[in-house]
Amino acid sequence: MHFSSLALRELVTRLLEEDIGYGDITTQAIVPPQARGHGHLLAKEALVLAGLEVVDAVFHTVDSTIRLDCAIQDGAHLVSGNVIAELHGPAHALLTAERVALNLLQRLSGVATATRRYVDRVRHTKAHIIDTRKTTPGLRLLEKYAIRVGGGHNHRFGLGDGVLIKDNHIAMAGGVRAALRGAKQRAGHTVKVEIEVDTLGQLKEVIDEGGVDIVMLDNMSLEDMTAAVKLVDGRMTIEASGGVTLERVPAIAATGVDLISSGAITHSVPQFDVGLDYKDAA
Amino acid sequence: MHFSSLALRELVTRLLEEDIGYGDITTQAIVPPQARGHGHLLAKEALVLAGLEVVDAVFHTVDSTIRLDCAIQDGAHLVSGNVIAELHGPAHALLTAERVALNLLQRLSGVATATRRYVDRVRHTKAHIIDTRKTTPGLRLLEKYAIRVGGGHNHRFGLGDGVLIKDNHIAMAGGVRAALRGAKQRAGHTVKVEIEVDTLGQLKEVIDEGGVDIVMLDNMSLEDMTAAVKLVDGRMTIEASGGVTLERVPAIAATGVDLISSGAITHSVPQFDVGLDYKDAA
Amino acid sequence: MHFSSLALRELVTRLLEEDIGYGDITTQAIVPPQARGHGHLLAKEALVLAGLEVVDAVFHTVDSTIRLDCAIQDGAHLVSGNVIAELHGPAHALLTAERVALNLLQRLSGVATATRRYVDRVRHTKAHIIDTRKTTPGLRLLEKYAIRVGGGHNHRFGLGDGVLIKDNHIAMAGGVRAALRGAKQRAGHTVKVEIEVDTLGQLKEVIDEGGVDIVMLDNMSLEDMTAAVKLVDGRMTIEASGGVTLERVPAIAATGVDLISSGAITHSVPQFDVGLDYKDAA
Amino acid sequence: MHFSSLALRELVTRLLEEDIGYGDITTQAIVPPQARGHGHLLAKEALVLAGLEVVDAVFHTVDSTIRLDCAIQDGAHLVSGNVIAELHGPAHALLTAERVALNLLQRLSGVATATRRYVDRVRHTKAHIIDTRKTTPGLRLLEKYAIRVGGGHNHRFGLGDGVLIKDNHIAMAGGVRAALRGAKQRAGHTVKVEIEVDTLGQLKEVIDEGGVDIVMLDNMSLEDMTAAVKLVDGRMTIEASGGVTLERVPAIAATGVDLISSGAITHSVPQFDVGLDYKDAA
Amino acid sequence: MHFSSLALRELVTRLLEEDIGYGDITTQAIVPPQARGHGHLLAKEALVLAGLEVVDAVFHTVDSTIRLDCAIQDGAHLVSGNVIAELHGPAHALLTAERVALNLLQRLSGVATATRRYVDRVRHTKAHIIDTRKTTPGLRLLEKYAIRVGGGHNHRFGLGDGVLIKDNHIAMAGGVRAALRGAKQRAGHTVKVEIEVDTLGQLKEVIDEGGVDIVMLDNMSLEDMTAAVKLVDGRMTIEASGGVTLERVPAIAATGVDLISSGAITHSVPQFDVGLDYKDAA
Amino acid sequence: MHFSSLALRELVTRLLEEDIGYGDITTQAIVPPQARGHGHLLAKEALVLAGLEVVDAVFHTVDSTIRLDCAIQDGAHLVSGNVIAELHGPAHALLTAERVALNLLQRLSGVATATRRYVDRVRHTKAHIIDTRKTTPGLRLLEKYAIRVGGGHNHRFGLGDGVLIKDNHIAMAGGVRAALRGAKQRAGHTVKVEIEVDTLGQLKEVIDEGGVDIVMLDNMSLEDMTAAVKLVDGRMTIEASGGVTLERVPAIAATGVDLISSGAITHSVPQFDVGLDYKDAA
Repeated sequence: MHFSSLALRELVTRLLEEDIGYGDITTQAIVPPQARGHGHLLAKEALVLAGLEVVDAVFHTVDSTIRLDCAIQDGAHLVSGNVIAELHGPAHALLTAERVALNLLQRLSGVATATRRYVDRVRHTKAHIIDTRKTTPGLRLLEKYAIRVGGGHNHRFGLGDGVLIKDNHIAMAGGVRAALRGAKQRAGHTVKVEIEVDTLGQLKEVIDEGGVDIVMLDNMSLEDMTAAVKLVDGRMTIEASGGVTLERVPAIAATGVDLISSGAITHSVPQFDVGLDYKDAA
Repeated sequence: MHFSSLALRELVTRLLEEDIGYGDITTQAIVPPQARGHGHLLAKEALVLAGLEVVDAVFHTVDSTIRLDCAIQDGAHLVSGNVIAELHGPAHALLTAERVALNLLQRLSGVATATRRYVDRVRHTKAHIIDTRKTTPGLRLLEKYAIRVGGGHNHRFGLGDGVLIKDNHIAMAGGVRAALRGAKQRAGHTVKVEIEVDTLGQLKEVIDEGGVDIVMLDNMSLEDMTAAVKLVDGRMTIEASGGVTLERVPAIAATGVDLISSGAITHSVPQFDVGLDYKDAA
Repeated sequence: MHFSSLALRELVTRLLEEDIGYGDITTQAIVPPQARGHGHLLAKEALVLAGLEVVDAVFHTVDSTIRLDCAIQDGAHLVSGNVIAELHGPAHALLTAERVALNLLQRLSGVATATRRYVDRVRHTKAHIIDTRKTTPGLRLLEKYAIRVGGGHNHRFGLGDGVLIKDNHIAMAGGVRAALRGAKQRAGHTVKVEIEVDTLGQLKEVIDEGGVDIVMLDNMSLEDMTAAVKLVDGRMTIEASGGVTLERVPAIAATGVDLISSGAITHSVPQFDVGLDYKDAA
Repeated sequence: MHFSSLALRELVTRLLEEDIGYGDITTQAIVPPQARGHGHLLAKEALVLAGLEVVDAVFHTVDSTIRLDCAIQDGAHLVSGNVIAELHGPAHALLTAERVALNLLQRLSGVATATRRYVDRVRHTKAHIIDTRKTTPGLRLLEKYAIRVGGGHNHRFGLGDGVLIKDNHIAMAGGVRAALRGAKQRAGHTVKVEIEVDTLGQLKEVIDEGGVDIVMLDNMSLEDMTAAVKLVDGRMTIEASGGVTLERVPAIAATGVDLISSGAITHSVPQFDVGLDYKDAA
Repeated sequence: MHFSSLALRELVTRLLEEDIGYGDITTQAIVPPQARGHGHLLAKEALVLAGLEVVDAVFHTVDSTIRLDCAIQDGAHLVSGNVIAELHGPAHALLTAERVALNLLQRLSGVATATRRYVDRVRHTKAHIIDTRKTTPGLRLLEKYAIRVGGGHNHRFGLGDGVLIKDNHIAMAGGVRAALRGAKQRAGHTVKVEIEVDTLGQLKEVIDEGGVDIVMLDNMSLEDMTAAVKLVDGRMTIEASGGVTLERVPAIAATGVDLISSGAITHSVPQFDVGLDYKDAA
Repeated sequence: MHFSSLALRELVTRLLEEDIGYGDITTQAIVPPQARGHGHLLAKEALVLAGLEVVDAVFHTVDSTIRLDCAIQDGAHLVSGNVIAELHGPAHALLTAERVALNLLQRLSGVATATRRYVDRVRHTKAHIIDTRKTTPGLRLLEKYAIRVGGGHNHRFGLGDGVLIKDNHIAMAGGVRAALRGAKQRAGHTVKVEIEVDTLGQLKEVIDEGGVDIVMLDNMSLEDMTAAVKLVDGRMTIEASGGVTLERVPAIAATGVDLISSGAITHSVPQFDVGLDYKDAA
């Protein structure tokens, strides 16, 4: 996975603590401490699976003796009824960890599935589907991973690993020229510079200033995008942003842009249904 | 708000760190350090607002001198173009905090708006709309708050503050009778006991065992729910769960159940669009 | 145990850090690094044992290869000289972990022993001995566990998992009626509501308002408690609080109350003496 | 106070989180958000006060606008009814912070009061009353402070700031001689070395080896202590340990030892009763 | 500063805790609690100043009422005796915070001064002096800041914000071609790709594969560097690495490379001497 | 090692997080997930090795299956080319952990090597080389360990485990006499008291006041040091401080002082070069 297992373990611990609170009082009151459980993780609708390593971390953080046998891998396209994994272990630990594991798997599979739909629509073009910073607060690294599972690519991970100059920055810097000069002078040589433009006029101004690594066309019409691609003529990477829907995305790709970014694939995806069914205890 | 401001400050700090990473290199490269900003937080579609206190905590964690003047309060029903708040402060801090603040406000407003829609459909009945543990991992306290803003009520906050006996627990305990006895003996007197039943037969078994505080009817037909309400006859609180949609929720409420729980109002809500537009700096 | 092992491991780590500081300089200066130790954990006076799992977590946090063989279980009634457990492992780790392990075991056994004494005095009645929030700051989950080991039951775990309306709340809410209405409207359906009354008059007011789940009789005379039980007539759970001593507790139970709460069983228990004697190193 | 305010703020935050959990649901349901409270902190029995700065940190961590006017200072000897401090502030914050503040103040005043009793018994001698590492896990710095408020002195704060060679160390090091040599060679020059002896024979062995900074006479008879004082003849500081009771402590001091250590003044003190009475809200 | 003030406050808190331990027992034993101090921060040798904001954070974390009046700014070239800042505040806080503040200021000024020396040697060329990941563990963000103060530029901040393919990666990937293809396919479009080459032959292989953003010439002779610059012909940014000394750096710059990286400017700089002299207390 | 392994694991985790950031994107893009690596840790110049246990903790925190076979131990004197350890394990983990491991090993070996040089110069005298609090912020425990590996001894670990009265303290206390009395009255009996004197006159004042445990001669001439040793006449431990260089240290030791402290051995040591060379993957 694209994030360190260190960070994963710490995140999962915190999420478990949120759900467990003072302890799983139902299980403790009802289930014999030595009972063992055996269950299946099942897809309950069609989805692109993402998050098995996360599920693994959740169960093993609660009890390191739980056995998780995965039949398939992240990225698999499942239909309702497909078995994702088989689980064996102490019944207490399985029951306590279940909800957090499912909440995460459903969300990440939701992101991967949504991403895959967009990717499939532009597969015949050179355009990449990319994400934004409109991720679920606290889960960015996981959702960025699910984007890649779905066939998408990642934009920057945070404010610290890429320069992206938006209209507000331009306004506060005193214009495109001042903003670009500041960025080129002060941003490190390992960092790419991207600028957002709303009009072809702004785009020309950027080109006149010598260009940057990436230019983002914000909320432009298809016609303007086509014209922009021609203007840029391969000298910058072009990102299309705004008004990106499943219906419109093929037309956007057809304009010749390199990247198409979508906030919706992280901020507004329905979770996909995954269940955990227990058989009788051993 | 229903959670302590202590917890809020710590959570917000962590979420900001996720987004800021090595620092806001764009702003630092481009915007003069002493520049001041002035902007409006605007609704960009119809929504029920939730999360102003969270937004406030985000901006003030980054810079305690930012001024946030709110025109309205959480729970207000806004339409596109409504001003939510006016912001004044150092431009660096405003630009750095913006994304986290918007991500949270959009998500919480999404939850409140979804909840309000369900609540409006059952307003003429005694039924309450309640949430589940299918919340966004890491944001449970915030989403539980948004549920209340939307007019809903909260189910338990985690595994530690309520007993909820599900089919897995029953199976592992060796039947309804054993499960109920364990719960009554070992759960504290301050804790309510709830049990899930799938059939009227199971419901009768619960009643025969002396009942509990709350009984959850899981995925029952409207006919069975009506029969269940009659069987219970006011001796237990009744929660309906499963198959809850905006279309079906009035009919569910009409069966006479007390509570209707929905996972979708937290796990699958689209975010609502809120923007931050800056005027020229002072 | 009633709390998650996650929380236990984190707590124990913090407590060890408090004691270890810059490192166990005595052991490091004197004991050969490869030396192994072998010792017994012994009761040095009569007590009800509580905390073996905590002791286990302390030793294993310092060194996962320590072997702890327990002859008995929490809840056992020991007399001076009884062996609690046998320990084998690296001498450095055993010596470094010892004090924290003993401090916790002694305190928890103190709580369990004090609780058992109260429980034994009312064993012939239906009354339960329960705890309060007057626990040792930082050790609440552990002490709540020791209460159960001693035969007691737990009151709520914190401010978040139960409503308890005290005189201050009533005063600030503007009377019993206002307080009860606020609680019933705004507290979740999974949460029980308890109210404190000082007089029979207040109790009647509560009954007139439709009652709550639990009523706490605060510092009442035995006569008033008897009258209160009659007034309530089974419609609410009754908790007696204040003036609870070993001498008086049988008479309180005889009034027919359901619960008798004691702060002293957590806040003022003497620690019980437990020792760790090493044999010669292997 | 003897610990850094940094550490105090972090500790208090954690203790508040333990008590507050999901939020103070009683206060939030019942008390109007804008209500203000006004109360008195009162001694409810005779005690030596300790912990005002801690109480202050608790209330200000919850709400920085609370005003705490202290009439007296730590170390004051109070009788029942004495006012300790007056409190003004938002009612929500006052009610939420109250229990943690009282739990800490009662415990620390308990420690200071117990210490003062021992100190008073030996005031006419040169002996100091000192503490041990048998403190409440997690509260050591606070209890060490309360010891000083009570007139006692502190032994080392943890394993890292002093060498104390106990019988186990001697056994594992291969005798007194080997232990002392290890300690002298490897302990830093800023660290004092103390050794525990059970018999006069062991004491002579220590003296023959050139002595250390402090020698602890463990569980010796008064006669042996007297003989030990004579043997040492001012060349080492002498600590008496074991069997220290209020009754016996004057006789121990009369043997001429320098220090008398007591575990009971931290591990087995009853809490002293302190209350918080609110007047009507402003 | 280039890192968030959030991160700075947390780091400074941890560093203070390391130094303060159980509390500043010297100050507490000796200096009256109400005493106020007044001192000067002075350069004691020639240096380029870096770290004033950090010093400010250290003092204000200990006591928010300390006043720090800075006469100059980071980047100033000082000689022995120059006043850096004047300090007023509670004597306890000033004395407790002093060592951590000085340790940080001296180290950061050491880094800035070392950087400036290299920068001055290549000022007449287009070459930038850049840093590496050979920073002091735990202080990377601060040292990266000091590099910029000294006139240098930053390489990537960690493993996550830039691809740098070293010989080990090439070996494990199965050659330059495989490595480059993996990087181009899987690294995000916002991330620059850099590759290390040891020979001109490897450089040609990179060029044949279509090049990358940055190529690092590792430990090459001046002749090979000159040849490499010619080969690359402006199509990639060129970084020279290895064997970079003050003596050799002008000759390296003269080869026409764009970047010259030095580990020594962070890992092996002597600290510069800065003192804090107190005047008599007010 | 002289610090607890608990503290080591937490520190190492934090340092790894600093370097890893969003994940090791180079390795993830290029190296097959199942590849295994095999490498040698090599000295690249003459040095005294220190930090093997730290290196071990770094690699095992990233992946517990890495095998580290050490040929030698901390304290060994190596020459360029000596193998320090052999490493086997998953290539991803090895590559990700490498830089943090090397940064720490190089710094600690730098400290040990610098210390050994001073120690060698005074080996024929009774003088010990000791450290100061001028350590790298965040790495004090590790550097204190390296000092001991180099043959040096440790001064106090922080402000909390020893009293050291400096000129500022004396000034604020109102003179040597007041300072000494405060220290003797209020410092615990387990804590040693040290005072700094600049002149023989101050030293006499200290002696007249009854002396302390340790006296520090600050920046004195060799003549004054010799006179001070005579004046003290064995009644106090004497520490020489200031102006300590490799050239001058034998003459300082010859004056008869007990301890010679050096800030330079921690704050200004060059790192020693250690490399990690991989063979082809298994």
